[in-house]
Amino acid sequence: MGKPKKLLNNPVDVVTELIDGLTAACGGDLRRLDGRNAVVRTEIADGKVALLIGGGSGHEPMFPGFVGPNLADGAPCGEVFAAPTPDLILDTLSAVDRGRGVLMVYGNYAGDNMNFDIAAELAEEVGIVTRTVRVWDDVAAAPLDRITDRRGIAGDFFVIKVAGGAAAELSDLDEVYRVAVKARDNTRSMGVALAAGSIPETGERTFELPEDEIEIGMGAHGEPGIARRKITDADAIAEEMTDRILADLPFSAGDEVALLVNNLGATTCMEMLIVARKVHHVLKARGIAVHRTDVGSFLTCQEMAGLSITLMKLDGELKRYLDMPARSFAYSRA
Amino acid sequence: MGKPKKLLNNPVDVVTELIDGLTAACGGDLRRLDGRNAVVRTEIADGKVALLIGGGSGHEPMFPGFVGPNLADGAPCGEVFAAPTPDLILDTLSAVDRGRGVLMVYGNYAGDNMNFDIAAELAEEVGIVTRTVRVWDDVAAAPLDRITDRRGIAGDFFVIKVAGGAAAELSDLDEVYRVAVKARDNTRSMGVALAAGSIPETGERTFELPEDEIEIGMGAHGEPGIARRKITDADAIAEEMTDRILADLPFSAGDEVALLVNNLGATTCMEMLIVARKVHHVLKARGIAVHRTDVGSFLTCQEMAGLSITLMKLDGELKRYLDMPARSFAYSRA
Repeated sequence: MGKPKKLLNNPVDVVTELIDGLTAACGGDLRRLDGRNAVVRTEIADGKVALLIGGGSGHEPMFPGFVGPNLADGAPCGEVFAAPTPDLILDTLSAVDRGRGVLMVYGNYAGDNMNFDIAAELAEEVGIVTRTVRVWDDVAAAPLDRITDRRGIAGDFFVIKVAGGAAAELSDLDEVYRVAVKARDNTRSMGVALAAGSIPETGERTFELPEDEIEIGMGAHGEPGIARRKITDADAIAEEMTDRILADLPFSAGDEVALLVNNLGATTCMEMLIVARKVHHVLKARGIAVHRTDVGSFLTCQEMAGLSITLMKLDGELKRYLDMPARSFAYSRA
Repeated sequence: MGKPKKLLNNPVDVVTELIDGLTAACGGDLRRLDGRNAVVRTEIADGKVALLIGGGSGHEPMFPGFVGPNLADGAPCGEVFAAPTPDLILDTLSAVDRGRGVLMVYGNYAGDNMNFDIAAELAEEVGIVTRTVRVWDDVAAAPLDRITDRRGIAGDFFVIKVAGGAAAELSDLDEVYRVAVKARDNTRSMGVALAAGSIPETGERTFELPEDEIEIGMGAHGEPGIARRKITDADAIAEEMTDRILADLPFSAGDEVALLVNNLGATTCMEMLIVARKVHHVLKARGIAVHRTDVGSFLTCQEMAGLSITLMKLDGELKRYLDMPARSFAYSRA
C-alpha cells in the first residue's frame, strides 16, 4: 500500500495543533497547560482525588478526548507513538492535584511506565501522593501468567470510565485505586488488523499485510499478533476473538459484562455493527448477559483498518461507576 | 487503489446485520420493525409529533444512529446507497405516528424524494398527516439560485437534532415543521475527499483520485465536486472550504454558529481536530462566534478519506433545540 494522503500542516506540529482543536471544540471545559502539550479540566473541585491519564499521541481520541467531568482531570500528550516526558507528566500532575493525591491510569508500555514512574518520584519529592494503574488488557500480547507483559489497548477506556466515576465520588485515593484495579483486572481485549496505519511525520505504514490477509491480536502500534491468515467472514473472526477473550479471564455463564467494539481507525460503522451483533450472539450462547455496549473510535492507530473487542466483567460497583453520567470530547453519557 | 478488505459476511445481508448490531448495542431503546430493515424507538409517547428520518444505507451512523429520545422516532433503511422503498417508509411512518402527524427529514436525492413522496401520499390515504423537510446543505452541489438541486450531506445532523428537540417539545406538526425548515435554511456544508470509499457488495471504489490529488466539494457517494487539485496543507484547504460556506448563506460578523466537522470515513481524529482548529481561527477572524462544536463520524461514505465542514447560523430557538439533551447510538448529550 502507498502512503495515505492526510490533511496536515507541518507534521512536527500535529500534537500541538490537535490539542488546539480539542480545546476549541470543548469550548471552555478544557484548557491547554501553559503552552505545553497537555490538557486539563478548567474546573476541578477542591479536595477531589485527581485522575491523570496519558500516553503517546496518534491514538486519538485516547487519551485527551476522555478528559472531563466524571472522567479524567488531565492528560499529558507525548509526541506521536512516544511516551510523554517525566517533566510534562509532573507538570500536568501538579496542575490537577487538589491535595488528595493523583491516580495515574495509562497503558502498559515500557516508555510510559518509565516516565510515569519518574514523574511519580518527582511528585513525591514535592509532596504529591500518586498511585498507578497500568492497563494490560490485550490478551494477545502475552500469556496469562505474564499478564504484566501485556499491552494496554481499548480496555483503557473502561478503566478510565470507572476510575473517573470513582474519583468524582470517593474522597480517598486508595479507594479510587482499589476500584480502578478491579476494573483493570476484569477487563480483556483483542484486536484484529486488516490494513496498517501510518506515521504522520513520514507517511510510512507501520507494517505490511498482504492484500488478502488479516492479523489477529495485532497491537495498537502494529506490534505482531498471534496469527496471520487469509481474511474470512466477519462472524468467524468475531467468534474466534470473543472466544479467546472469554477463555482468558475466564468469563462464565451467569456473568454480566460491558462490551466495547473499538474502531482502530478506518473501519466502517457498518462493519463495527456487524461485529457487535456477532459478539452479542456468542455471549448469549455462552449465557453471558450484556449490561451495555459501546461502539466507536476510542483508541485508534491512525488510519489502521481493523477493530478490537473488549469485555469487562461487572459487579455492582463497577456497573455503578461505568454508568455514571460523563462529558468529554469523545464520550458523553446522559 | 485496490479493493479494501472488510469485515463482512454475505454482502447482501449488510443492512439486515448492521440493524441487528444497532438494536443489540442500544439495549432496548430501539427495536427492528417486524423483520424489516427499519428501526423505531421502543417507547414513543402518545400525542407526540413523530420525526421520521431515513435514506440509503452505507452512510452509518446516518440515519439509524440518530433514533432516540429528543432525536428521531424511526428510520427506514434502504439498501446500500439506495433509497428505502415507499412501502418500507409507509410502514415505519405508521409505526411511529401517535396521532399528531409525522415530520419526515431526509437528504435531497431524487430516489429519496420520490419514495418519501409516494409514502406520504399513501399515508394520507390512511389518515396520517405528514410534512417533509429535504436537507440541501451541500453548497458545492449547485449554485445558490438552484438550492433545491443541492444534496443533503452532514448538515442532516443539525436539522435532525433541532427537529428532534422541537418534535419532543411542541405539540403541533406545523410548528415542528417551521423550526426544522429554519434549521435547514440556516445550514451550509462542504466536503473534501482524499480517497474513495467502496461499495460493500462489490468492493469497487466509488471513484478514482490520483495519489497526490484531492477533490473539494465531492458528494457523499462520490459525486463530482467543484475542484480537483494537488493536495496542500490542512489549513489552506480548511480555510477555502470555510470561506465558501460563509459566502453562501452568507454568514456575517456578529453571527453565532454551530460547527460540525464530519468524518467521511477513514480520516483520523488527529486530522479532524487540526481542521476544527483552523475553522475556529477563520471564524474568529471573521467575527463569528462558535456556540458549540461537534467533531466525529455523522454521515460517512464507507471508508472514504476526507471530511466535511458544516455551519448552522443560530438564533435563540435553534440554540435551544440544538442544546437539548439527547440519546442515541451515535449521539448522546447530557
